[in-house]
Amino acid sequence: MSTHRYDLIVIGSGPAGEKGAAQAAYFGKKVAMVERDYYLGGAAASTTIPSKALRETALALSGIRSRRLYGVDLSLRRQATIQDFLHHEEVMKDTERRRVADNMLRHNVDIFRGIGSFKDQHTVKVTSRDRKPKFLEGDVILIATGSSPRWPDNFPRDHHIYDSDTILRIKDLPTNMIIVGGGVVGCEYSCVFAALGIEVFLLQSQDILLPFLDRDISLTLQKSMSRMGIALKMPVTVRRCTARTKGVIIELDSDEVIKADTVMLATGRTSNTTELNLEHAGITLGRHGFLVVNVNYQVVHPETHEPVLGIYAAGDVIGPPALASTSMEQARFAIIKAFDLEPYKKHVAPVLPYGIYTIPECSGVGKTEEQCVSKGIDYVVGKASYNQNARGMITGDHDGFLKLLFKFNEDPRSPMKLLGVHVIGETATELIHTGLSALMMGASSDLFINTCFNYPTLTELYKYATYDAMGRRAKRLNSD
Amino acid sequence: MSTHRYDLIVIGSGPAGEKGAAQAAYFGKKVAMVERDYYLGGAAASTTIPSKALRETALALSGIRSRRLYGVDLSLRRQATIQDFLHHEEVMKDTERRRVADNMLRHNVDIFRGIGSFKDQHTVKVTSRDRKPKFLEGDVILIATGSSPRWPDNFPRDHHIYDSDTILRIKDLPTNMIIVGGGVVGCEYSCVFAALGIEVFLLQSQDILLPFLDRDISLTLQKSMSRMGIALKMPVTVRRCTARTKGVIIELDSDEVIKADTVMLATGRTSNTTELNLEHAGITLGRHGFLVVNVNYQVVHPETHEPVLGIYAAGDVIGPPALASTSMEQARFAIIKAFDLEPYKKHVAPVLPYGIYTIPECSGVGKTEEQCVSKGIDYVVGKASYNQNARGMITGDHDGFLKLLFKFNEDPRSPMKLLGVHVIGETATELIHTGLSALMMGASSDLFINTCFNYPTLTELYKYATYDAMGRRAKRLNSD
Repeated sequence: MSTHRYDLIVIGSGPAGEKGAAQAAYFGKKVAMVERDYYLGGAAASTTIPSKALRETALALSGIRSRRLYGVDLSLRRQATIQDFLHHEEVMKDTERRRVADNMLRHNVDIFRGIGSFKDQHTVKVTSRDRKPKFLEGDVILIATGSSPRWPDNFPRDHHIYDSDTILRIKDLPTNMIIVGGGVVGCEYSCVFAALGIEVFLLQSQDILLPFLDRDISLTLQKSMSRMGIALKMPVTVRRCTARTKGVIIELDSDEVIKADTVMLATGRTSNTTELNLEHAGITLGRHGFLVVNVNYQVVHPETHEPVLGIYAAGDVIGPPALASTSMEQARFAIIKAFDLEPYKKHVAPVLPYGIYTIPECSGVGKTEEQCVSKGIDYVVGKASYNQNARGMITGDHDGFLKLLFKFNEDPRSPMKLLGVHVIGETATELIHTGLSALMMGASSDLFINTCFNYPTLTELYKYATYDAMGRRAKRLNSD
Repeated sequence: MSTHRYDLIVIGSGPAGEKGAAQAAYFGKKVAMVERDYYLGGAAASTTIPSKALRETALALSGIRSRRLYGVDLSLRRQATIQDFLHHEEVMKDTERRRVADNMLRHNVDIFRGIGSFKDQHTVKVTSRDRKPKFLEGDVILIATGSSPRWPDNFPRDHHIYDSDTILRIKDLPTNMIIVGGGVVGCEYSCVFAALGIEVFLLQSQDILLPFLDRDISLTLQKSMSRMGIALKMPVTVRRCTARTKGVIIELDSDEVIKADTVMLATGRTSNTTELNLEHAGITLGRHGFLVVNVNYQVVHPETHEPVLGIYAAGDVIGPPALASTSMEQARFAIIKAFDLEPYKKHVAPVLPYGIYTIPECSGVGKTEEQCVSKGIDYVVGKASYNQNARGMITGDHDGFLKLLFKFNEDPRSPMKLLGVHVIGETATELIHTGLSALMMGASSDLFINTCFNYPTLTELYKYATYDAMGRRAKRLNSD
């Protein structure tokens, strides 16, 4: 039995695994990566990027982006075929997988294909069908095995029922579709399929979509989705799901019955830990089967919070927010901590944005209005809408808006500290970053007042939302 | 003779006039606005917004944005008609004019239609064809009369020859077109008309397009434009231009002769001052006919720099950069200074971005690499390209890139101060603002290293360009 020695062993090659491995290798560490799939890239390559590419294709084919732009209707919806976007998806997937492989090669990371499991706290066993097991010994082990869609018990395994991993392998566009779950995945796919001309029923168990969003954003999205023709049913619970030869029947707790060609489950994800043999490393799983970590992303015991020597975890496997963006940051930070590479990066990003690729896009960072209320923070809102903005007018997005939250300051000539930024509308996921930089640097209202923004751009909305907030403060001071 | 008294009189209702008037009115000043046109809004409404709308239309009709996105070719170029975008243009223009009028109404600004001229240093005479003159007296007068296209002597006045104001009134798309001038206007229109399928010849007198840009950006744009089929001729000088019944013949200094259906002049602009009767207010024009102002945007004598009491100027009328964005800031700042409204806004934005709506877009702020070299600043470059970025891959923009310039710092663990940000590619004019906020706050490389960006977004390029700069610094330190 030969054993290979490494400074770092990374299990999983998705966003967390890739960035963790690259970070360590950049600082001269000897790194091994274990990946069970034939391809590298994990969820980002297989589902995140293809689903965003599908969204772009749907937007282009449906003409949504240009519909209000001029007299001509560019809508080619009728010609939309699944082949159009499958082609694009394959290209994207290949490119991303190749990019990850190139990145690992450039960083001299050794790739081991097979299932990684713990032999002991410092040894990973790699098993694959066609080769005999290999053993890797590492000072540090980073678990980045990701997650898999959760399949609720009351849904049969049937070829009309997809989850968020298998949906991208669908062969023909159905006429109609039931999407179960009003979280990020459910909302994103509802919009994409509706844009492709499919009749969509979206079932959500709570009384609002995406409950973690600022309520203003969430309610505006809901309105947009309804206007696109998505039939929102909420709050509802699925009592029974029955598969038939030509489709699926869902019966709700309200006795309502919905029939459709296809069902897509967007009912959460579970950590990929079953094959890791965690007990050999003395690791105990926490609630919902997530790995529990401390502020340094070192794995700890869920009750005693005792750290497990040399073992770190990042990404979906440790639970929410389970975004590619945060997963990459967690992994980079874990490596800095594991190898004591400070002060290169002193802390994991203190404010984390979310970007949701619905139609329209939503994005936010910092406090929501609801959080300000519940925490007793005295705040002032400032809003500016796309339809008062030259660029918004040009692109024809009439519903989008930017919402800023500032800490109330009773001196009318003093700037107000920025607390939160929320955007819904075209390129919201990019626009948020001007506010994110501002939050990262502890900026106040004077930053946006003093900045000269390009004209015509959507980012100008920051200035007008700030003016709006100042006007609201003045009004409040006058009425006090 | 009745005289109306005001705190502020604004001459001109373009971006500078509108924002100056609104700023003063917001602080309770009594404001009059004089506008010679029937409509409010000036250049922004009549040319800036319509030209950007035309660009969107050209992009949509040509399918450039989606061409590489999937197997299907959405190109509808053959069906592109001038009516398609004229319709869109009219809608935009009306909306913007209405927006300005609403804004003035909301701020209780009195509108006077007619030509404004000085009777004396505090009195503006408003004359119009159908009414008798009115006289407005003001403590402060803001000149915001804008500029008009410059028509070189060697071009005849002919219906085949347009300038940047009249081009938007063209009735039929020509087969080919000569555009004279490789500045912002010339480059923007060259791209739009090329995207609409018109054969474009672009004549530039210098040996590079847009010489004020970072050279990397300028050369990449040049390559893109050539690839679009634009025939760049530079450096060239027009010797003679002759109009014929069915088109125009241009003879260059090199003896080369170019024939085309249409010519568009993009040969600079001149200040609109001839009807102001500046001598009645004791104002002398500076070089190139621009009004000269001091740091507070108060009009001064071009030689003695003696300020003219109570008279301010902003926007195109004072010369470069003559962008809507900077014009608005200048006017706001002039009003703050004129009425001593500090500390509401302590200084005009210290860093001014430029946004150029070519295809692809270009944008920049802070130092260019050439400026660093000429000022002897020791710098480090960091680059990241769209084709290594997930979002860039999805949108299919392969040539775009972000370039950051940092001040060299020999301690490898210390952050490097950000000096400049340059972008070419899809939504460059929006992307720049994350770097702009950073520059405004004096940020360093650690900001981008510590920020968690949404995935997949183009703004992530900031992180990767920063990594690139750190890698280049490390290489340089190792080789020293």
